[in-house]
Amino acid sequence: MEILDGKLVSQAVKDKLKAQTEERKKQGKKLPHLAAVLIGNNGASETYVASKVKSCSEIGFTSTLIRFPQEVTEEELLFKLNELNDDFDVDGILVQLPLPSHISEQKIIETIYPTKDVDGFHPESVGRMVQGLPAFYPATPYGILLLLEHYKIETKGKHAVVIGRSNIVGRPISIMLSKNDYPGNCTVTVCHSHTPNLAEICLQGDIIIAALGKPEFLKSNMVKPGAVVVDVGITRITDSTKKSGFSIKGDVDYDDVAPKCSYITPVPGGVGPMTIAALLMNTFKACIAKDIA
Amino acid sequence: MEILDGKLVSQAVKDKLKAQTEERKKQGKKLPHLAAVLIGNNGASETYVASKVKSCSEIGFTSTLIRFPQEVTEEELLFKLNELNDDFDVDGILVQLPLPSHISEQKIIETIYPTKDVDGFHPESVGRMVQGLPAFYPATPYGILLLLEHYKIETKGKHAVVIGRSNIVGRPISIMLSKNDYPGNCTVTVCHSHTPNLAEICLQGDIIIAALGKPEFLKSNMVKPGAVVVDVGITRITDSTKKSGFSIKGDVDYDDVAPKCSYITPVPGGVGPMTIAALLMNTFKACIAKDIA
Repeated sequence: MEILDGKLVSQAVKDKLKAQTEERKKQGKKLPHLAAVLIGNNGASETYVASKVKSCSEIGFTSTLIRFPQEVTEEELLFKLNELNDDFDVDGILVQLPLPSHISEQKIIETIYPTKDVDGFHPESVGRMVQGLPAFYPATPYGILLLLEHYKIETKGKHAVVIGRSNIVGRPISIMLSKNDYPGNCTVTVCHSHTPNLAEICLQGDIIIAALGKPEFLKSNMVKPGAVVVDVGITRITDSTKKSGFSIKGDVDYDDVAPKCSYITPVPGGVGPMTIAALLMNTFKACIAKDIA
Repeated sequence: MEILDGKLVSQAVKDKLKAQTEERKKQGKKLPHLAAVLIGNNGASETYVASKVKSCSEIGFTSTLIRFPQEVTEEELLFKLNELNDDFDVDGILVQLPLPSHISEQKIIETIYPTKDVDGFHPESVGRMVQGLPAFYPATPYGILLLLEHYKIETKGKHAVVIGRSNIVGRPISIMLSKNDYPGNCTVTVCHSHTPNLAEICLQGDIIIAALGKPEFLKSNMVKPGAVVVDVGITRITDSTKKSGFSIKGDVDYDDVAPKCSYITPVPGGVGPMTIAALLMNTFKACIAKDIA
């Protein structure tokens, strides 16, 4: 059993982007620029955004952090997004979710230009991805592809079972894994809460993507020997033995499942770190697209 | 075994739309208006467009047929599409595919406003469909849903096997059948040319959608007793016994498979007529969306 080490691969992606960014600097070209918008003081959101901004600075990207109080109006937010849309120097825009309930998430997502939509949440980005056109892939599923690619996992003709059909993970990864490309060309089954024979279907999976958000859901009796298991879950569980008061659990019962796998992602340190790598990749691509345009 | 009769259901959809259109007329409301663009003299395209225009007139929709010679430039075509986009009276625009090779299909598709994209081919339409937002569904898969709905076929918790991953049928129907709705909530497996164990997977299907474009591909030994089989194939086969010189074959070996099914679509007369019904539904929806806007 080998670990799909998201920390290591994320660092490898960042190292490569750093070298490419230094090369651009030498050539006097524009440097990639990510603008992150953070609303309110949600702890998890603060951590995510801080980590994204820090990663930018590590690899030589420009980043701008724009903060708004919880009470910001939708209008103010839309105004700022339009400014960022029109700012030539900004390549990628991300608005950290979730948003306060008085702001329409959909409206915010659809306001960001698809050419700057490095989170890949705009319907046009999703549609382009589905149709096999150049597009920004949403960060988490894109991160999974980068991980599979790094470990040269064979995907062609394999049966991938995706548990979960969310817009941000299950749905897009199921589409990506069945496209005519590498990683891809899998036979893909999408399972969800209405799948009556989930264990039976999981047992067919050469690759299993667990993205349902139920801690330690996937057990060894649902996994075929030699399967590749990717755990997208990150649930905080109260844990008095930890200083923080909680521990992070994935959707896979790791200790039970790991011995049966050929490859498995740990939680934390698997898919999580890859999402930032994917976001940075998208930002870099948004920047170099301007070289050509 | 019961036949999923596309002719009958298509007529039922049209009758309903006709009644609703008459009602709108009585109320002095705007009538649905479809603009169809036809380029060159391809026989099949002529037939399809003529049939769409005829259906419009039968149910009281306004329709406009715009013809261009094979040599039309991309610029001329784009100019016309922009005119149609800006014409308030036009609710739906369709450009009959395929296009001459000197015109970019993608550019044409992306020029039509998503609000008038009744063929559902614009990336934004596809993305909205994937994300579960109100959207125009592409006609063929939408027609399949209307067919399943008419016969009240249970889909929740069923295993749907989709053979084919094309942008116009396989991919969208696989997404639609797994969404949290009716028809939907299926466990869905997408198979394609790289699926090594296709027969084994088809045998799990409570519902099989054959959309690979290989005449009489699906045989009875690939079908579970009681399955619902939907045949999307329409291939012309040379046939000297027919006046026309050809006959139309589906992707399902009908005589072999039908006795094993609970429901099956014939070819012709199954999915084919439903695509027009779906297009008319989309045009009607585009029209009533303006009542609200």
